[in-house]
Amino acid sequence: MSDLNWTTEITKIKPDEIRLRGYRIDELMGNVTFPEAVYLALKGELPGKEIGELINAILVSSIDHGATPPSVLAARTIASTGAPLNAAVAGGILAVSRWHGGAIEMCMQHLIEIKRMMGEENLDEVQATRKLVSAYRAQKKRLSGFGHRIHKKDPRTKTLFDLAEKAKLNGNFISIARSLSGAIKEILGRELPINVDGAIAALLCELDFPPEVANGFFMMARVPGLIAHIFEEQSNQKPMRKIHPTDHNYKGPEDRTL
Amino acid sequence: MSDLNWTTEITKIKPDEIRLRGYRIDELMGNVTFPEAVYLALKGELPGKEIGELINAILVSSIDHGATPPSVLAARTIASTGAPLNAAVAGGILAVSRWHGGAIEMCMQHLIEIKRMMGEENLDEVQATRKLVSAYRAQKKRLSGFGHRIHKKDPRTKTLFDLAEKAKLNGNFISIARSLSGAIKEILGRELPINVDGAIAALLCELDFPPEVANGFFMMARVPGLIAHIFEEQSNQKPMRKIHPTDHNYKGPEDRTL
Amino acid sequence: MSDLNWTTEITKIKPDEIRLRGYRIDELMGNVTFPEAVYLALKGELPGKEIGELINAILVSSIDHGATPPSVLAARTIASTGAPLNAAVAGGILAVSRWHGGAIEMCMQHLIEIKRMMGEENLDEVQATRKLVSAYRAQKKRLSGFGHRIHKKDPRTKTLFDLAEKAKLNGNFISIARSLSGAIKEILGRELPINVDGAIAALLCELDFPPEVANGFFMMARVPGLIAHIFEEQSNQKPMRKIHPTDHNYKGPEDRTL
Amino acid sequence: MSDLNWTTEITKIKPDEIRLRGYRIDELMGNVTFPEAVYLALKGELPGKEIGELINAILVSSIDHGATPPSVLAARTIASTGAPLNAAVAGGILAVSRWHGGAIEMCMQHLIEIKRMMGEENLDEVQATRKLVSAYRAQKKRLSGFGHRIHKKDPRTKTLFDLAEKAKLNGNFISIARSLSGAIKEILGRELPINVDGAIAALLCELDFPPEVANGFFMMARVPGLIAHIFEEQSNQKPMRKIHPTDHNYKGPEDRTL
Repeated sequence: MSDLNWTTEITKIKPDEIRLRGYRIDELMGNVTFPEAVYLALKGELPGKEIGELINAILVSSIDHGATPPSVLAARTIASTGAPLNAAVAGGILAVSRWHGGAIEMCMQHLIEIKRMMGEENLDEVQATRKLVSAYRAQKKRLSGFGHRIHKKDPRTKTLFDLAEKAKLNGNFISIARSLSGAIKEILGRELPINVDGAIAALLCELDFPPEVANGFFMMARVPGLIAHIFEEQSNQKPMRKIHPTDHNYKGPEDRTL
Repeated sequence: MSDLNWTTEITKIKPDEIRLRGYRIDELMGNVTFPEAVYLALKGELPGKEIGELINAILVSSIDHGATPPSVLAARTIASTGAPLNAAVAGGILAVSRWHGGAIEMCMQHLIEIKRMMGEENLDEVQATRKLVSAYRAQKKRLSGFGHRIHKKDPRTKTLFDLAEKAKLNGNFISIARSLSGAIKEILGRELPINVDGAIAALLCELDFPPEVANGFFMMARVPGLIAHIFEEQSNQKPMRKIHPTDHNYKGPEDRTL
Repeated sequence: MSDLNWTTEITKIKPDEIRLRGYRIDELMGNVTFPEAVYLALKGELPGKEIGELINAILVSSIDHGATPPSVLAARTIASTGAPLNAAVAGGILAVSRWHGGAIEMCMQHLIEIKRMMGEENLDEVQATRKLVSAYRAQKKRLSGFGHRIHKKDPRTKTLFDLAEKAKLNGNFISIARSLSGAIKEILGRELPINVDGAIAALLCELDFPPEVANGFFMMARVPGLIAHIFEEQSNQKPMRKIHPTDHNYKGPEDRTL
Repeated sequence: MSDLNWTTEITKIKPDEIRLRGYRIDELMGNVTFPEAVYLALKGELPGKEIGELINAILVSSIDHGATPPSVLAARTIASTGAPLNAAVAGGILAVSRWHGGAIEMCMQHLIEIKRMMGEENLDEVQATRKLVSAYRAQKKRLSGFGHRIHKKDPRTKTLFDLAEKAKLNGNFISIARSLSGAIKEILGRELPINVDGAIAALLCELDFPPEVANGFFMMARVPGLIAHIFEEQSNQKPMRKIHPTDHNYKGPEDRTL
């Protein structure tokens, strides 16, 4: 043991034995879902079945959003130079920042701050959300998790909240998010419904995840989508083509239902 | 429509409607598992339940492998400089290359080549695997997917193959992988059992995934592990510490079972 | 011209003609130094000869700092997996962040803020630097650009300041940086001389570079060093070796002088 | 000294003393040019003055090529999400691959192979280049370093070769590159003059750089250009804008001469 010795609480490795947070990986395989294993890796404990399903829904919700997000355009641009898969995926992940995916962490901070104000400053939900919106307006800072460039009523938000209700989460963060959207309308005069980032933020607050890992949920979710785009780019397109950011059409499978 | 117009077959976006390979994302949420959605994103169709469980097991198998793999060390090193989460994740993904995770694609190519030799050259499995190993020895090239720095008998391999058997896969790739390990022992005189990369390679061959996306399974699986390490690094350790690559101990939850 | 049309002020491309900020690249080649071209690319004008030499000295000062900085360890770790050169360089650059190289931008902001206080609040240099240090102490925030893990009296700082003096810069930023180091000693009781990041910060303030590009100077300077380390790693070391962060020795050319 | 002890030949660090390949960094500062320091870092020795000027010209030649190359589009796309400078630079560098910048290394390999054929197979230059082109045609492999999407007669190539002549390089690699262009015309029937990648390749062969670091010259050269584009993007454009890959105009300084 040198003076550089350090400890980790995530995984224990011995010859022929790998334990994630105490559980043998080969026991987890086949017995827990990947979203449950994600929860275990990040929080140290396995979630209940319904929480696992919520994590699952969060990951499914953000698996892809077509060819216009900057993460996809960055990944395809890199892929078009003949780069290996991992370089293009890494490039896509580097675009998950402040204005793209990055809203999850910031929205969590809004919601946590409102909850704090309600507890410490003796404000009700409406008062606290109004106070936050006014403060942001005064400082000309932008609130995250509300409004979407394309969707007026993001279908993913409703589904996430329905599943959260089924899971009987009751930390009030969904309610706070809704009040915050209301306060934005009232004070800023803009109709900005909760977007998928904001919905995920509310759920991650409910599940007591630290805001620091929030954007990681977007990354975990989006990597498969990035891989699909990179593979399509390298299979179907010429190297070094000029990639138009909006002038593209979908020509995959027809609309269908499960 | 400009002359730069292009098409994609992955996702269709309309206001308030997102369809992955034809299915509404909000219908998929809550109704399919994330591993099934991964399969859908990459292959264009939903898998059967048992194939979905196999993808799930692949992802769980590789979610983390402790603090020594280069992807984790690169991610923690970057995290220790105060970098944001996505930069550290991207750094980790950049280490998923030739000698780390990258073996999946290369092992798939071995297995596909052997299958081809069996079909086109009228060789049986033992003959074909011996021919491949001999050719690699002659060219001083290294075979991928066999042997592990730490594990003699990787517990993940057995579990993946058990689940594959349960799913009644029958493309013979698992059998080919085993024969290949046998041929390595016979011809090279080294006991190199199928490692987790090799096992995943055999399963992805069975599921007819293109080798070009193979390493993507390792990336999808490992991102949660990277996030756990990055969060631990930034929560528990001083910035810019010297990160010893092996002198660390596990002090998380005790050994436990489901 | 579509509604996505946009403009750039950096480079004009026509068949057989490339103009950087108005100058033909093939005229610049052989007639200006690379550091002068860097200045031209970033500021839009060619610098005078002495400013060019100062940029040159900044780049030379940070070209390498041995094998312990996290950028080098991240780059070598990625290189050891068999990754291509650009992936390892990118990994190294991802480690140029808050606590490593990132201090240049932050120190520039300190110096600009002090200059502003001197102008707007009618304080002299000593008063303004003391005020800033006290404010940082009160907010428990750390000042950047002072002190070094290894060097007590960073030889690069003195040389940069000598060259700056020769170039007759007179925006007082070097003086402010020195006063700031003095105020740190007086108020925090710690001897923290100006490190190379702080010295570069003072010079970039003198040259009126925007703080947003400051860390870029560290990146431009360090890329050659990263490439040297990556090449050495892939030429001389085994793939996937465990890279000790401190237990390494120099065995290159003996000490020598120009 | 642990069993992980290793050695490096690049830089020696002692308190208050930094030596690159034996020379004190603070002595190099102000006395050598950055391109000379690049040569020193990579080759271990300082170059003569004329070789230093050649390295300088290589770096200046590739400092920027406007807003269409994929490295710039990837970097701007990432920058538009609010990412920090280093993330956008890293994304740009990830696009320096097979089809963009990556040609330098591959062209060096062509030239070295032709030189080898001339020595070992007793062929003259014309015979050897024809043999290589024919072999590539037979294998349907593409030669690198010839032809450009925009330039018919790349002005950078001529200037680099003029400077090389002035430096009296005489390894015949420039002559080989010209013969190779001739053989391409003769055998493939296509007029593909030596592009800037091919010209740099010939010069790096002359200077006996290992092909493995070749693309690094493109990276070193292009980082300042990337930084200029990233800064322009974040200063002048809205976050998350759609970045058209070709519909942009230059509106910087007018054409001018030194």
